[in-house]
Amino acid sequence: MKVLIAYYSKTGNTKQMAEAIADAIEKENLEVILKEVEEVKAKDLVDYQGLIFGTPTYYGTCSYQVKRLLDESVILHGKLDGKAGGAFTSSNNIGGGNETAILSILEAMLIHGMVIQGDSEGDHYGPVAIGGLDKRAEANCQRFAKRFADLVKKISGGLLL
Amino acid sequence: MKVLIAYYSKTGNTKQMAEAIADAIEKENLEVILKEVEEVKAKDLVDYQGLIFGTPTYYGTCSYQVKRLLDESVILHGKLDGKAGGAFTSSNNIGGGNETAILSILEAMLIHGMVIQGDSEGDHYGPVAIGGLDKRAEANCQRFAKRFADLVKKISGGLLL
Amino acid sequence: MKVLIAYYSKTGNTKQMAEAIADAIEKENLEVILKEVEEVKAKDLVDYQGLIFGTPTYYGTCSYQVKRLLDESVILHGKLDGKAGGAFTSSNNIGGGNETAILSILEAMLIHGMVIQGDSEGDHYGPVAIGGLDKRAEANCQRFAKRFADLVKKISGGLLL
Amino acid sequence: MKVLIAYYSKTGNTKQMAEAIADAIEKENLEVILKEVEEVKAKDLVDYQGLIFGTPTYYGTCSYQVKRLLDESVILHGKLDGKAGGAFTSSNNIGGGNETAILSILEAMLIHGMVIQGDSEGDHYGPVAIGGLDKRAEANCQRFAKRFADLVKKISGGLLL
Repeated sequence: MKVLIAYYSKTGNTKQMAEAIADAIEKENLEVILKEVEEVKAKDLVDYQGLIFGTPTYYGTCSYQVKRLLDESVILHGKLDGKAGGAFTSSNNIGGGNETAILSILEAMLIHGMVIQGDSEGDHYGPVAIGGLDKRAEANCQRFAKRFADLVKKISGGLLL
Repeated sequence: MKVLIAYYSKTGNTKQMAEAIADAIEKENLEVILKEVEEVKAKDLVDYQGLIFGTPTYYGTCSYQVKRLLDESVILHGKLDGKAGGAFTSSNNIGGGNETAILSILEAMLIHGMVIQGDSEGDHYGPVAIGGLDKRAEANCQRFAKRFADLVKKISGGLLL
Repeated sequence: MKVLIAYYSKTGNTKQMAEAIADAIEKENLEVILKEVEEVKAKDLVDYQGLIFGTPTYYGTCSYQVKRLLDESVILHGKLDGKAGGAFTSSNNIGGGNETAILSILEAMLIHGMVIQGDSEGDHYGPVAIGGLDKRAEANCQRFAKRFADLVKKISGGLLL
Repeated sequence: MKVLIAYYSKTGNTKQMAEAIADAIEKENLEVILKEVEEVKAKDLVDYQGLIFGTPTYYGTCSYQVKRLLDESVILHGKLDGKAGGAFTSSNNIGGGNETAILSILEAMLIHGMVIQGDSEGDHYGPVAIGGLDKRAEANCQRFAKRFADLVKKISGGLLL
């Protein structure tokens, strides 16, 4: 079972989050491919059981580079059904659009028929860093990674049991 | 495995949707409890493997009666983690707040740590009726019900296999 | 010109924000009525040129008490057109649903045909406190109040000039 | 006073809406510049008193071409404060992400400190066409245009009185 983490990062903050999540998912014994979003080809998204997208918070949604991949993924429409999805963001401010940025990705995933899960502790929709990867954000990334790995195993592993 | 469908309905439109979804889930061999939202006690939500809430579209979110149950569900915070969630709405207008109404419920479910799934066909976030239960909306309700039953079985049935 | 600030507060955090905003709007020479949301009658909303609603962040939207007033305001549907609207929230967590809580109120205001304004500095959709009214949140409340007063004057004052 | 309508259109549906809105705003005696979004330079956005963005509904938000312009508009951050904003979309489906697509643009405008207004009749957040420009959508475009022109005059005309 393979998970793709695709991110856009200009200042390095989102990249730090991506790496923290990748490390923590690998510890759960899933293969992780970590890529800058511009290196991902839309047609390859179908090869993964889990997709996680990371973005800086730009005007309340994901960066256009992330959106471009989402737009291009229409060539797979219907084929990502039932896969696990998640999202994370780095933001300059509390109250600065970080929740809506995450939701902009999660909504795209729902429109693909994907499965998403929130968290009753920590950052509810997905990990948020205010600025760089401080302790709070790092703990959220690790917690998110552990839960995401569990979700991937549960929803794509059923047939193996 | 039991599914709760809790709805608020003033004109009967949302109730019609609730009944169509209940019938279609029962055909998937899950037990369905169909209740007006004001008859549901928050503490009982933990008894179900799947929770579906229905609401008319009132000012872009769910009706306050549905929101009251969501607010009261804080007594179970953390205990609904990993359950399946879904939502549907009836609305007066296209572009009248129906998507944001469904998302207002789905976001609450994510904050409970629940699992939700979109649909790449039909109404992506959850079934929408414009006015009463016309053919389009009925097909969406049935499709949603089938997929929701599959999700419940997949995520709560793993341990049984 | 009169502004209503209607809030729900259980722990006192949202009330502190409401009072800070009320003080700062009064300094802009507008009359401010500050009320707990359960004391506000829907029919009276038409008496104000500006409406500000405050809520704790409960499961990603406003509390049901605030939602009840929004639902009941349907008796005025069409009559709040063109009035100024704003919202604020107190929340337990960063990434805890505070933005979606504010947007749940702003979307209701848009559906009433009201006019809202964001802020390119500070909390973009409306003031957010994480917990109580710390310095960051207080500065955001004051900034919001000043801008809201300006908006009220601009959009409802045209006829007076 | 000048209004920019910037749109992305692949099939022509969004373009039809853009033209209908442009015609109706011109009838209100405002100058309208109608452009494909890829022809608009971010730095020029400051030259308009009103900005309207149109997009097809692509995975629940605006197309990446529209998002790119919004991202690039950061070079003007703070300078669009107080300008009027609006958005419209064409979508394949009812319940297909059209409301969230419009809101993805409106939220960006709020983050710029812009002023937006909903509508208590018709499409509440902004005009939605399901497919091409049918009668329902055309009436919504005209209504939106009239109201937007009024908003521009009200909020940018204050200094002239």
